[in-house]
Amino acid sequence: MFNYNKSTKKSKMNSGKIEDQFLTALLEKCGAAEQRILVALSGGPDSVALLHLLVATQKLWQGQLFAAHINHKLRAAAEDDALFCSKLCEHLQIPFFTEKVDVRDFSANEKLSIETAARELRYETLDRILREQKCNLLALGHHADDQAETTLGNLLRGTGLRGLAGMPYKFGNRIRPLLGLSQNDLLDFLKEQQISYRKDESNLDTQFKRNKIRHKLLPYLQQEYNPQISDALNKLSQISNHAEDYLVSEAGKALQAMTIEETEFKIVLDIERFWSYFDILQKYALRLAIEKLTSNQIRPNYSDLERIETSLKTNKIGTQIPLHGKWEALIDREVIVFRATTAFNFDMHVEMDGFAEHKDGWKITATRIDSAGIDPRNQATRFSQFTDNTKIKGRIRVRSFRKGDFFYPLGLKGKKSISDYFTDRKVALYKRKEIPIVYCDTGIIWIVGHHLDERFKVTSHTNSIIKFEFKDKNL
Amino acid sequence: MFNYNKSTKKSKMNSGKIEDQFLTALLEKCGAAEQRILVALSGGPDSVALLHLLVATQKLWQGQLFAAHINHKLRAAAEDDALFCSKLCEHLQIPFFTEKVDVRDFSANEKLSIETAARELRYETLDRILREQKCNLLALGHHADDQAETTLGNLLRGTGLRGLAGMPYKFGNRIRPLLGLSQNDLLDFLKEQQISYRKDESNLDTQFKRNKIRHKLLPYLQQEYNPQISDALNKLSQISNHAEDYLVSEAGKALQAMTIEETEFKIVLDIERFWSYFDILQKYALRLAIEKLTSNQIRPNYSDLERIETSLKTNKIGTQIPLHGKWEALIDREVIVFRATTAFNFDMHVEMDGFAEHKDGWKITATRIDSAGIDPRNQATRFSQFTDNTKIKGRIRVRSFRKGDFFYPLGLKGKKSISDYFTDRKVALYKRKEIPIVYCDTGIIWIVGHHLDERFKVTSHTNSIIKFEFKDKNL
Repeated sequence: MFNYNKSTKKSKMNSGKIEDQFLTALLEKCGAAEQRILVALSGGPDSVALLHLLVATQKLWQGQLFAAHINHKLRAAAEDDALFCSKLCEHLQIPFFTEKVDVRDFSANEKLSIETAARELRYETLDRILREQKCNLLALGHHADDQAETTLGNLLRGTGLRGLAGMPYKFGNRIRPLLGLSQNDLLDFLKEQQISYRKDESNLDTQFKRNKIRHKLLPYLQQEYNPQISDALNKLSQISNHAEDYLVSEAGKALQAMTIEETEFKIVLDIERFWSYFDILQKYALRLAIEKLTSNQIRPNYSDLERIETSLKTNKIGTQIPLHGKWEALIDREVIVFRATTAFNFDMHVEMDGFAEHKDGWKITATRIDSAGIDPRNQATRFSQFTDNTKIKGRIRVRSFRKGDFFYPLGLKGKKSISDYFTDRKVALYKRKEIPIVYCDTGIIWIVGHHLDERFKVTSHTNSIIKFEFKDKNL
Repeated sequence: MFNYNKSTKKSKMNSGKIEDQFLTALLEKCGAAEQRILVALSGGPDSVALLHLLVATQKLWQGQLFAAHINHKLRAAAEDDALFCSKLCEHLQIPFFTEKVDVRDFSANEKLSIETAARELRYETLDRILREQKCNLLALGHHADDQAETTLGNLLRGTGLRGLAGMPYKFGNRIRPLLGLSQNDLLDFLKEQQISYRKDESNLDTQFKRNKIRHKLLPYLQQEYNPQISDALNKLSQISNHAEDYLVSEAGKALQAMTIEETEFKIVLDIERFWSYFDILQKYALRLAIEKLTSNQIRPNYSDLERIETSLKTNKIGTQIPLHGKWEALIDREVIVFRATTAFNFDMHVEMDGFAEHKDGWKITATRIDSAGIDPRNQATRFSQFTDNTKIKGRIRVRSFRKGDFFYPLGLKGKKSISDYFTDRKVALYKRKEIPIVYCDTGIIWIVGHHLDERFKVTSHTNSIIKFEFKDKNL
């Protein structure tokens, strides 16, 4: 189905070399052996070369091949591109799928740039076809020159090693087996093999920013500073990639070693342990903690991390550093806490003879019980208390600590600020907002795990008792 | 001796800020506390600001200050610059030294570019003044914008993390305490403090390559791609610096763990151990090994290291990879050896009743002895042998193994190639050239540590004996 051009020995040797390189990347860096691979086929030289290289080496990677073309309907030749892809796959006997997407509509509705809208729709559609055809991998045609552009673009915008590393060979189910080959390698291959492709003259990209790098900056740097600038950028991207791999791995271990508490809503790190690591591992560990906690919703940059470290250095206890969205970092005496602020700003109704439940895994039950035979002094615990029902006014609620809170601690004379109470009891700052406070219109009833309020205690006159219980599935 | 401009509160505050930053860098990154610092003073804004900042903070770093001006005699204003520097130091009461160097002559004689010649002469002279004045540190005026240029320049040329990291705050006795401050910071400081300086209009550098980056590329990138490009490059340089620190430290440990032999002339690494490390540590360990062995005469780049790793991967035993100059890497069965080729290509005369000495620490003595009472079968050892003097023709010499060598092993019948002999005896490839072979015009007499030649053995007819002994101070 695919014929080598055997006319000259040279071309045979060359094509052999590019295929070897391709196969090595495909197997070692993309983990593509025996997989079902869907090729994103635009009809341009890159994806056509990708498809042919996959076909040419199919016996060696031993998997199955599918192709999909997404018609963005953005340019006059779009229909012809789709037809070209369809015929190519028919000729190569590869299952082919094509879909039209309405980029302009989507871009207008979602208020996205044409470039972003096209990308989102393209990947959404490709992912759907991937699922429908039960493919494992989506193969993309990005090559070494694309990589150099990405590295240079990130560099210009401002980046660390992750940005310099550029696009990965494999990320999730997306693979880029051409990253080690230059556009010239691919064009030579296509020429030698007499493979035709669609000339991407009005390449979707040409309207956009990245093309300023491709068509202006890179040629300028090549001419004025270094003819091998793409190579230099690719090497740097490789080095950065390897450094990044190692740093992430080591920072992962460091993070584990400095983590003293971790739930869905927070990660608590030991500051002394933190300082024991090299500067770069500190930064990476902070980054990993934030990415882990936020499920990669926040990807902090170097300045964010520096800001946190500077606060840690000046050691201002109580400093809250807002991260994007609902997340924050809190500096406490011996720890730094990353947490979802929302999870610790709660205020809930406690159902009578029912409960209030917090997403962090605990609940508080309120149960009316018969007073006969109950002596709270014997049966109360840190997490279960008895109160006089008649003293409770309005609805029973439970909420997190607020500045200015006060109560009348059982057995002590008079009123006390809860903030002072916490300080006396050496409750860490970051823990204060996690402690449920049961209250009603009369005032604060119970600081869970700590202290009952004098006003609600059961006395010899109590007829009706409410029993509060705190249950934490994490405990 | 140095007056702050106290006219406005703002200027006072600002200058306070820059001095704080400067002092932190000076103490923490340059280790300058209580040192004797020589400032390289050109008279331009950077070095003048450097000098004033050192004076302004002198009470806090508590050391002594000296200044030196090198007159390159390259431009018309050179004499005026020297005079300006001299007056400035007189005013500040700082010991001042000035010297003229002949850059044009030196450049012509040594066939160096003007830029290189000027730099070499400048540092040579500064280093001499440093020694004469018993100073510990040479302070240079490079600032953040210089750093951005260095990073960008290295990047364009092609570099890894070390190149991205740019110039270090401290390297040997050179310090660059201004690296964290931009040229604008310095100019603002000079303006606020009403400090005059020489305008470097025909800056020595302007004729040279780096200025194309400063005056063309950086402004272009700033205008077209990112107004904060210098900041972005400086951040990247910082990150790279921190990553480099960590990687060098970890690679040092890795290198130690994989080194199985180390002398002045070679480093032998265990290949299995080598592969157990992350890719980036492998590269760094190779780099460190080469730099260590060659006392930093060779600074291998990424491609050099890749070439070595590729040879290791294909596992072609016996592959010799020439490094620059007299060094090579040799791949053996289970080890890779970095070594000075010259150290193992020796051929020396062995003085009769004297010795030949090798720079690796061993020597071979040849002594005429009385044959009475000598029975070689009892007294010969691996490192001491007895031969029949009459069989020896010409001068006695000792040399390293050469391809095609053969001998007549004692007690075995006939001739044997030494290469086969080594293979039979499982002598590692890299060890073969280290084994001294004693010979004369008749042929090979003794493979030291291994085998005597049949032709030279002592018989009942022997009247005159030569005793050879091998002594190694490393053993």
